[in-house]
Amino acid sequence: MNPDIVKERRNATFDVETLTNILDGGPEKTSRRREIESLVLNDPDFKEQDPNFLSRSERYEQAVRKSAQMILKLREYGIADPEEIYCYKSTVRGTFHEALGLHYAMFLPTLYNQCTPEQSAKWLPLAESFQALGTYAQTELGHGTHLRGLETTATYDPATQEFVLNSPTVSSIKWWPGGLGKTSNHAIVLAQLYTQGNCHGLHAFITPIRDMDTHQPLPGIVVGDIGPKFGFNEVDNGFLKLENVRIPRENMLMKFAKVEPDGTYVKPPSAKLTYGTMVFIRSMIVGDSARCLAKACTISIRYSAVRHQSEIRPGDPEPQILDYQTQQHKLFPLLATAYAFTYVGQYMHDTYQRISGDINAGDFSELPELHALSAGLKAFTSWIANAGIEVCRMSCGGHGYSRSSGLPDIYVEFTPSCTYEGENTVMMLQTARYLVKSYRQAKAGKQLNGIVSYLSEARHGRVQPQPVAARPRVVDINDLASLVEAYKLRAANLVELAAKSIQQELQHRKSQEDAWNNSAIELVRSSDAHCHYVVVKLFTDKLGEISDTAVHSVMSTLALLYALHGITKNSGDFLQAGLLTVPQVLQISTRVKELLSQLRPNTVALVDAFDFHDMKLNSVLGRYDGNVYENMFEWARNSPLNTTEVHESFHKYLKPLRAKL
Amino acid sequence: MNPDIVKERRNATFDVETLTNILDGGPEKTSRRREIESLVLNDPDFKEQDPNFLSRSERYEQAVRKSAQMILKLREYGIADPEEIYCYKSTVRGTFHEALGLHYAMFLPTLYNQCTPEQSAKWLPLAESFQALGTYAQTELGHGTHLRGLETTATYDPATQEFVLNSPTVSSIKWWPGGLGKTSNHAIVLAQLYTQGNCHGLHAFITPIRDMDTHQPLPGIVVGDIGPKFGFNEVDNGFLKLENVRIPRENMLMKFAKVEPDGTYVKPPSAKLTYGTMVFIRSMIVGDSARCLAKACTISIRYSAVRHQSEIRPGDPEPQILDYQTQQHKLFPLLATAYAFTYVGQYMHDTYQRISGDINAGDFSELPELHALSAGLKAFTSWIANAGIEVCRMSCGGHGYSRSSGLPDIYVEFTPSCTYEGENTVMMLQTARYLVKSYRQAKAGKQLNGIVSYLSEARHGRVQPQPVAARPRVVDINDLASLVEAYKLRAANLVELAAKSIQQELQHRKSQEDAWNNSAIELVRSSDAHCHYVVVKLFTDKLGEISDTAVHSVMSTLALLYALHGITKNSGDFLQAGLLTVPQVLQISTRVKELLSQLRPNTVALVDAFDFHDMKLNSVLGRYDGNVYENMFEWARNSPLNTTEVHESFHKYLKPLRAKL
Repeated sequence: MNPDIVKERRNATFDVETLTNILDGGPEKTSRRREIESLVLNDPDFKEQDPNFLSRSERYEQAVRKSAQMILKLREYGIADPEEIYCYKSTVRGTFHEALGLHYAMFLPTLYNQCTPEQSAKWLPLAESFQALGTYAQTELGHGTHLRGLETTATYDPATQEFVLNSPTVSSIKWWPGGLGKTSNHAIVLAQLYTQGNCHGLHAFITPIRDMDTHQPLPGIVVGDIGPKFGFNEVDNGFLKLENVRIPRENMLMKFAKVEPDGTYVKPPSAKLTYGTMVFIRSMIVGDSARCLAKACTISIRYSAVRHQSEIRPGDPEPQILDYQTQQHKLFPLLATAYAFTYVGQYMHDTYQRISGDINAGDFSELPELHALSAGLKAFTSWIANAGIEVCRMSCGGHGYSRSSGLPDIYVEFTPSCTYEGENTVMMLQTARYLVKSYRQAKAGKQLNGIVSYLSEARHGRVQPQPVAARPRVVDINDLASLVEAYKLRAANLVELAAKSIQQELQHRKSQEDAWNNSAIELVRSSDAHCHYVVVKLFTDKLGEISDTAVHSVMSTLALLYALHGITKNSGDFLQAGLLTVPQVLQISTRVKELLSQLRPNTVALVDAFDFHDMKLNSVLGRYDGNVYENMFEWARNSPLNTTEVHESFHKYLKPLRAKL
Repeated sequence: MNPDIVKERRNATFDVETLTNILDGGPEKTSRRREIESLVLNDPDFKEQDPNFLSRSERYEQAVRKSAQMILKLREYGIADPEEIYCYKSTVRGTFHEALGLHYAMFLPTLYNQCTPEQSAKWLPLAESFQALGTYAQTELGHGTHLRGLETTATYDPATQEFVLNSPTVSSIKWWPGGLGKTSNHAIVLAQLYTQGNCHGLHAFITPIRDMDTHQPLPGIVVGDIGPKFGFNEVDNGFLKLENVRIPRENMLMKFAKVEPDGTYVKPPSAKLTYGTMVFIRSMIVGDSARCLAKACTISIRYSAVRHQSEIRPGDPEPQILDYQTQQHKLFPLLATAYAFTYVGQYMHDTYQRISGDINAGDFSELPELHALSAGLKAFTSWIANAGIEVCRMSCGGHGYSRSSGLPDIYVEFTPSCTYEGENTVMMLQTARYLVKSYRQAKAGKQLNGIVSYLSEARHGRVQPQPVAARPRVVDINDLASLVEAYKLRAANLVELAAKSIQQELQHRKSQEDAWNNSAIELVRSSDAHCHYVVVKLFTDKLGEISDTAVHSVMSTLALLYALHGITKNSGDFLQAGLLTVPQVLQISTRVKELLSQLRPNTVALVDAFDFHDMKLNSVLGRYDGNVYENMFEWARNSPLNTTEVHESFHKYLKPLRAKL
């Protein structure tokens, strides 16, 4: 064990295990989690090559092998609880992804939700036994977010009682679905339904794409892998071109909408159910943002504790990087953010669980707010985690660029979260739509409930911008409740600014839509401020649940750092709204520096509390024992270019060069 | 040609070729550049596989092959001018790097600068004929920026008149040098020189590491590749462990310092010469930042012109993404930044050229300012380009994650610039040291010259923070000269804040060094503001050189957008310093939106003017003809996972699974 990191752990003022238990939701949950993790960690079947040493094809193969093994092992161990399965699988995956991911995440759930009883009886046994390996093909080469723009067609032919599926243009080729390229033999294809000469919009069709026995593509099917990507290279995201592919009428998922044998279209009763799934997945991404940022913080903070560099005082030994104020200023606010997002993720998860019973019972009353919140928080947390992971990486000097650090992989595997399941800017605008609507309701005198209720309060004239000097100093910069209030008023001010921008645009132009588009910058900004307020509030609320004094103390410092650092990064907003004075902003900068020093002795313990096993981190820089350099040397020696001493290119190109000159 | 992109080009208000000529430095330079580029583009020897389709070993081999070919071709064409060589090579490289990069960039220049005449006579013919393939081994596994911390030793043995080189610890293993792993047979090793029992600090030693004939590592040499990285995977960055490696006394580079045969050490006369090289390389990185950001803008803006998505007005066809205000707000300020950095890069290059004669003649009077400026601007521009490339990538939706977009490669090949040749935070602090020193001189009554002279002006009480209401509105937000003034005063204010922080720390603590470290956040911020001022100023200055009215007009709009957008992102600074009022900040936000609309018709033409050939961009999204989707499909079909219809993992793992369930 590296002596520096031992010293760091000795200096912590709180008990790490207590905090880990809080993060897990209780000591029994910690111990069950570790029990499941140890099933993987001690299993020789999951010992593997670093994927960075493999070719794309080998990486994919290794992922398929692990997916297949997981199925067998989970059955063997009798693990059936979804959260336990998630825990097991995420230990196997580490930073990477599962080859059969979409079979579980989209193919099976869609069958469960949208099959008629007859369809269930046919397809579920095939899918659950992995004879039918499936994916969900919605996005097209030229079309993403806007579902009405999708071009794939399914035209009903009453003569044969079949649908004829087609990709009429290049831009209509299905593109991106995970597992579509090589793994799946079925796809649920989303296509514009045509029957009796009319288009009825997007519907889902179970489409066999490969022979279930030979795995060869079926007639009319052009299918393959979309090629190497920034990350996700163990997943075969695929393309699918449909050329007059005929499937039986019964392959349209008909629980809701139907096409009768004669081609008569029967409308679905309602479409709100898909809302719930989106909320669930976006809540999961909030949790992912927290986890990935926490991993990056773990690596960079541990390495900063064992890495010595340069000098603060001449003649002294090189200090730990963690002693540099600039390093603290890069990493500690991100550590605070990782904790903040962890609590927000838990809140989203719990809230979804709480109201999912209502949703299943058809009560959607809380859903619009949760939907708006999950959209904005998905974008807010994934953008910040995305940028934060790179700050962590670049805080590790040159070694952050080595794949052995684990940081490049964390980044490339996480960054798609900013785009999939709702592109972040689009998400921010969805939340803004809810905020502006709520603001208008408040302005019209309606009392708002829930997390946007502040937009009612704000109407009482409290957030009118006014000269700084004329405002009483209301904010106590050391009081979290007061800071939550300041964030709230900042958000209210920016929502009002966005609403006014729309108003002004309407006065100059004709359409609502152009007014909206011409206010989009302000709208995104207002969503961002709203989410920021929610995060500060939830972090502060969480403190009330922590009874251990030592943990409470360090968490309060982290929460205060999170709130004050956010103000220094957005001081213009707070000054503009007249919420803070110039001297207060200067005080906050000084206070942030004090908090960095105050946190310094606890930061290694704070990342330890996330309790990422070394195998899950997959980073020589982030090793628990701090023995970085010898392991980096070992890793490098094992890398593929070192299997021979002399690379053949010397004989092929370099040596012959001499003769030619 | 895609009709959307044709329409965009038709709508431009200026002549693209005129602007390209301005960027190149004249029409003859444009035509010579294109002539050189066409030598590569039409050369079948440089047709190659997309490196993303290759294994690491194949990528390296392809890079070596191209390096060897370039040597022969450049001789064949008689291209000898350094800028022309740079142009030729950068066309061959595209986004990627050269296998022999360090042979040219460090090995040869070090020999030229530090050899005695006898050493030159021996080594230059070997190096210039590529018999000696060399690199420069400074950085160690545990040591980077701080040269005194390096641990490799070279101990003189007068008995044999040899130096004995050793890597005494794991952390002393040489790590990262480009070309060290596989390519080089020599390394210039930087080691602590010991002779007659004393250490004389770091000196350079020509160290043979591989047999020049067999290429096998020599006795005592442990050498290899450091393994896969985020980028630079065509380069064999290497490690080197030295175990009692003996080299003749004559292998120490002795132009300056010497070791006599008896072991007597002779000091070098001065060490300022290396300054010039650092300034040169950092200036080059400023230019790189501009080029890489310009490439990313070219790809994302062209793709945004041909990509249609969602709807602004219900029922209308899907609009071009470029019509969304949020997309404009992401990309146009970055486009303005790419232009700004291009001009800054040219300024740095020209200034270096101007004073390099002085430097060679031993006149270093302008060097400290240029050194400070190049350090800060290297950090400022590379950080912003780094983040900007990712914004461009994520503005392309899902396809930005595909390697076919070219954007992941631009990012991973560029991002090391933030760390190499001076870690960015360290660079910012170097500039801050110069600023604080200048500030103190000004405070002591000295009249400053050059770019920091404003720190004298600022002493006349113009930047004391005061209540907003009490200040006259001095800034005209539509006047660039006035905005330059505002940026200058913001920088002056932040330099003063940093200096005061140090002062306050000194009053509470003992040492200068701790006071410095405890003010590092403010110091970095002041450097950042200083660089920002310089960029706004140089962009504004550049406008004076542009005589073409139409180009001048669009460049003025870009410069104004650059300046005003920068204020919206840092409004707190301007409000805090009392330079702008709250209503002005609101006006600026509105003005930014107007400028986005105003630039909209010119943005495709503005990226066209950078004149990146398709082969250099290597991006299906950024193609000049806008035919994105058919080429993306083509690219995917050629990717390696599609060489067989059925991947063997189906037979190995997926099909057998059925039987086991």
